[in-house]
Amino acid sequence: MTVPGEADASTLVRWIESRRHAVEAALERYVPAPGMAPAERRAPPIVAEAMRYSLLAGGKRLRPLLALGAAEAVAERLGHTPEHAMELALPAACALEFIHTYSLVHDDLPAMDNDTMRRGRPTAHVVFGEGIAILAGDALLTDAFSLLAREPALSADVAAEELSRRKLETVAIVAEAAGAAGMVGGQTLDLLAVRPDAAPLDGAALREMHMRKTGALIIASSLAGAVMGGATAEQMEAVGRYALQVGLAFQIVDDILDVEGVEAEIGKTPGKDAAAGKPTYPALFGLDTSKRMAADCLARAREALGSMNLADSHLMGIGQWIIERRN
Amino acid sequence: MTVPGEADASTLVRWIESRRHAVEAALERYVPAPGMAPAERRAPPIVAEAMRYSLLAGGKRLRPLLALGAAEAVAERLGHTPEHAMELALPAACALEFIHTYSLVHDDLPAMDNDTMRRGRPTAHVVFGEGIAILAGDALLTDAFSLLAREPALSADVAAEELSRRKLETVAIVAEAAGAAGMVGGQTLDLLAVRPDAAPLDGAALREMHMRKTGALIIASSLAGAVMGGATAEQMEAVGRYALQVGLAFQIVDDILDVEGVEAEIGKTPGKDAAAGKPTYPALFGLDTSKRMAADCLARAREALGSMNLADSHLMGIGQWIIERRN
Repeated sequence: MTVPGEADASTLVRWIESRRHAVEAALERYVPAPGMAPAERRAPPIVAEAMRYSLLAGGKRLRPLLALGAAEAVAERLGHTPEHAMELALPAACALEFIHTYSLVHDDLPAMDNDTMRRGRPTAHVVFGEGIAILAGDALLTDAFSLLAREPALSADVAAEELSRRKLETVAIVAEAAGAAGMVGGQTLDLLAVRPDAAPLDGAALREMHMRKTGALIIASSLAGAVMGGATAEQMEAVGRYALQVGLAFQIVDDILDVEGVEAEIGKTPGKDAAAGKPTYPALFGLDTSKRMAADCLARAREALGSMNLADSHLMGIGQWIIERRN
Repeated sequence: MTVPGEADASTLVRWIESRRHAVEAALERYVPAPGMAPAERRAPPIVAEAMRYSLLAGGKRLRPLLALGAAEAVAERLGHTPEHAMELALPAACALEFIHTYSLVHDDLPAMDNDTMRRGRPTAHVVFGEGIAILAGDALLTDAFSLLAREPALSADVAAEELSRRKLETVAIVAEAAGAAGMVGGQTLDLLAVRPDAAPLDGAALREMHMRKTGALIIASSLAGAVMGGATAEQMEAVGRYALQVGLAFQIVDDILDVEGVEAEIGKTPGKDAAAGKPTYPALFGLDTSKRMAADCLARAREALGSMNLADSHLMGIGQWIIERRN
């Protein structure tokens, strides 16, 4: 692996494509299928269908890529192969996408952001009704924890007790990031911020809202991958600092794309957030400063990984890809 | 411990009161408090308040009692004290109440059962609005998994690796019971059953719906307590068979109380389920047969526990209390 640059952009693209492919195949395996044997232990078809509709709708698969990138980066430094890291971290990578998808399904509900389109398709509650959309979200969240606790059941290279320790630590990291103090807390702050009587958010409040709403799960994805890959405490610390910066950059770029983006590419109406009165980085700091802020985040992310000799990895490439993305 | 009978009813009542007291105190510790330090890692006050409103509203605490009863029963047979079992199983007992509460909050939503009263008080969405109610439910569910993964952090009597194994197994059992194939699946079947165009449920379909909607979590509560108490595979099997019968009896009795109950005692309008066109056991089988079915379940539950010499326990007393309850 090398530092992504002119010559290595295609290496990164190939890596992302290959890992995305593995994630898509694994998501398909892990999500309930309506056509499966109608045994008592299966999900009812309509909720399985709603889960699949939202989960298998494409998307960047950013959180799984971060998990796999982190697992591979730390495993390589510890002398293991990418295959070893994949085997250990792929279920957690998928569980994180389950949780991300649940958060989108619930955020889109009429009582929340009331969005009717997502990734160029009608949202789950439009297609399946509100009740089933709430339940499909609940199921994705809950089943994510089944996946984290159960898979992989065994590993050829890691002792059973060590594997249990890693899985339990992953459950703790992910649950904390997704819960009341993390992602749910962030969505709460977002909901309060757009109320007609709400005071406008300043820069610090905007940052806090986003750090919870999207940053917490981005950090948890990276840390979950690192834990499953067998990270040392020092590697965990470096990956956590990297992911904090990537989480910040992700949101800043999201806001920039809301101003500059093309509808066909971002899959939603540009300017929608600003029109809805949602505070954005460009609105608060201007477009140029926002772009510089994102670049600064990336530099700090590289510094964090460099401290543990992890900057020369696809994990760093993902960070770069995030701030250069067009959608 | 003795078989509950004339002389021992008060022993059981004292046990239930003492364990409920411990559960209430622990729930209060584990749920976020709005008044706590406003650090970045705390839940926003409004979501904390909504979580507390629903979680600390009283209730029978049946699931925590089953968890603690199972932990104590198996621990005693393995030569441990009730205190040992409590220390190990109390966090899981509380996590199960978090999950039960989340399911009530979401089930009460306008898009689901549209209930405005619960336990004699307005439901969460009436008090806090739909958006915050959805988020409070999401937070209770997610934070339950934090609790299962993190607590107890240590035990004086159980090695760290064994404790991790038990906690991870508990996460897996609870997540599977609460997810798409379990509780969420049951609520889905319930939602479909009351649609105007739905075919009426027959006895088998009614049983399947309830086994998922309430039975799965009742079984998981008993098994979670047993795992945390250090159960052997044979004890797990016996506790699982016991809990299956208790889950069935619970729902049959619930339906009977909907016919016979007094509003002040059951905290909701009697006859509401029947009026809403929800299938019930008395409607399908008549009141007398329904009562006999509940008694048969209890007999089978006793037989299951008896097979592992566990019938002489408060766990069995809880089963009896469930079918004799008036609310």
